Amino acid sequence: MSERTNSKVCVIGLGSMGFGVASSLLKKGFETSGYDISAETMTRFLQDGGRAAASPAEAADGADIVITVVVNGAQTEAVLFGENGAATKMPKGGTILSFATMPPQTAEDLAQRARDLGLNYIDGPISGGAKRAASGELTVMASGRPEAFNHARPVLNAIAMKVYELGDRPGIGSSFKIVNQLLAGVHIAAACEAITFAKALGLDIDKVYEVITASAGNSWMFENRVPHILQGDYSPQSAVDIFTKDLGIVSDLGRGLKFPLPITSTALQMFIMTAAAGMGRDDDASVARLIAKVTGIELPGGPEVT
Amino acid sequence: MSERTNSKVCVIGLGSMGFGVASSLLKKGFETSGYDISAETMTRFLQDGGRAAASPAEAADGADIVITVVVNGAQTEAVLFGENGAATKMPKGGTILSFATMPPQTAEDLAQRARDLGLNYIDGPISGGAKRAASGELTVMASGRPEAFNHARPVLNAIAMKVYELGDRPGIGSSFKIVNQLLAGVHIAAACEAITFAKALGLDIDKVYEVITASAGNSWMFENRVPHILQGDYSPQSAVDIFTKDLGIVSDLGRGLKFPLPITSTALQMFIMTAAAGMGRDDDASVARLIAKVTGIELPGGPEVT
Repeated sequence: MSERTNSKVCVIGLGSMGFGVASSLLKKGFETSGYDISAETMTRFLQDGGRAAASPAEAADGADIVITVVVNGAQTEAVLFGENGAATKMPKGGTILSFATMPPQTAEDLAQRARDLGLNYIDGPISGGAKRAASGELTVMASGRPEAFNHARPVLNAIAMKVYELGDRPGIGSSFKIVNQLLAGVHIAAACEAITFAKALGLDIDKVYEVITASAGNSWMFENRVPHILQGDYSPQSAVDIFTKDLGIVSDLGRGLKFPLPITSTALQMFIMTAAAGMGRDDDASVARLIAKVTGIELPGGPEVT
Repeated sequence: MSERTNSKVCVIGLGSMGFGVASSLLKKGFETSGYDISAETMTRFLQDGGRAAASPAEAADGADIVITVVVNGAQTEAVLFGENGAATKMPKGGTILSFATMPPQTAEDLAQRARDLGLNYIDGPISGGAKRAASGELTVMASGRPEAFNHARPVLNAIAMKVYELGDRPGIGSSFKIVNQLLAGVHIAAACEAITFAKALGLDIDKVYEVITASAGNSWMFENRVPHILQGDYSPQSAVDIFTKDLGIVSDLGRGLKFPLPITSTALQMFIMTAAAGMGRDDDASVARLIAKVTGIELPGGPEVT
């Protein structure tokens, strides 16, 4: 099954994650085309050796693997199947890798439309953040048919440290990602609640970070996000709006299944409040700034960060 | 400052944590007396080489370091300063190590009463669970005066892998522990919400455990508690009632400070619901059984565990 390993790859959506994915592919010698709505990004991509295009369709022309790294299901649908969409230009037997987080049913619907055009589809949401995208060390939670994986495996291995092949059915990858996002979102909001509460108790919060990261209260997100608060740096490594979106998907799914999600719902409200206070595009650790604002406690970085 | 390293030590409260503490001390050659309300426990302690006593006062007689490993602040006060309390029998200059989780103000009050009797006091809540208590690998989040640490350090080092000395003022140790418990409790409840939701989504929850523990959604508690759910084993390694108590303390403190704790409050309600459903003395992962019961999903272990 190695006849197609010299794939031409197309990446649609060159934001912080997509640009890292495309860079990893270029570094590893894949002929890579790309498209993004930002002209500035396209220039940077061209300078890095990518083949820039004026539309998803043009980017996909001649590529047998198309990777979509856009924000959600609706954008994925648009860049694949909308006007000047990529799918129309792909050869039969080509493979779509969809990396956005979306409801499982949306992933199943998109996969069906791909199959109707004779294309393979991998539902493969990614995790790991911009830094690991750039270093080719993402985690991919993927599902799809064996022939899709056989075709895309060299590309997946070029951009990911770990590819979980979770089943044949599209939607499974998205479901795993959604469970991950439930936990990630709750843990960020809990980290913000805990570290501001520690400040209200009069504790040295640098010391709290040291003690908690070595204790049973630790989480991957506490360890990763609390330094943003300690440094007073809310430039968006991952924005509040990502979690209003992702916990929104979790919340909708729960309601649809009549499955109660009290902790998730509360965390979602914290992100919504933070976005409502004008911080939607700032780093998701900004939930701590919201709490500081409400309670009057002082966080590092001074009043201008709150 | 090594003139008192040949301390005689007394441990009051020989439950799953206290028995491990006492065993560690005996293994390391400390002459150790102890007291517990359970006669069965006292017999076991005697067989292990401990000196059994009929009251806290009798156990403390001749000991210059007394460790209290009881459930809360009220019990700590009773065994130290109540009828037949340990403090009356301690020599001046002796040191009390209080290991229970309690409100910081309670720790300050107990320390003041100790000082009035010429005793040192370390506010040192412990973390790590029964296994690590037994192997002498606890974490201690401690505060107290330098002379107290100088006196007790050999004993602390015998029972703990890591002793954080967090400041002079009693109450600081308790505050750190409370922040840890806030996170630990929220993470347990979130783990239970996430793994049952994953089941409702039709996922293979053993695989979910494998993927999440390698992803950004991981927490110490997810990694530690979800195996209980996967094995359908709810024998109490740490009981639901511990978290109704500890998140109750967090909640009371927040209300006292007028500090909102929405995520903590929601998690507390989940533990209270689980206790209300008759599982207060079962393992804290029983929150998952509560959710399974409400939603009708099937967890490992069959209906008898739900």
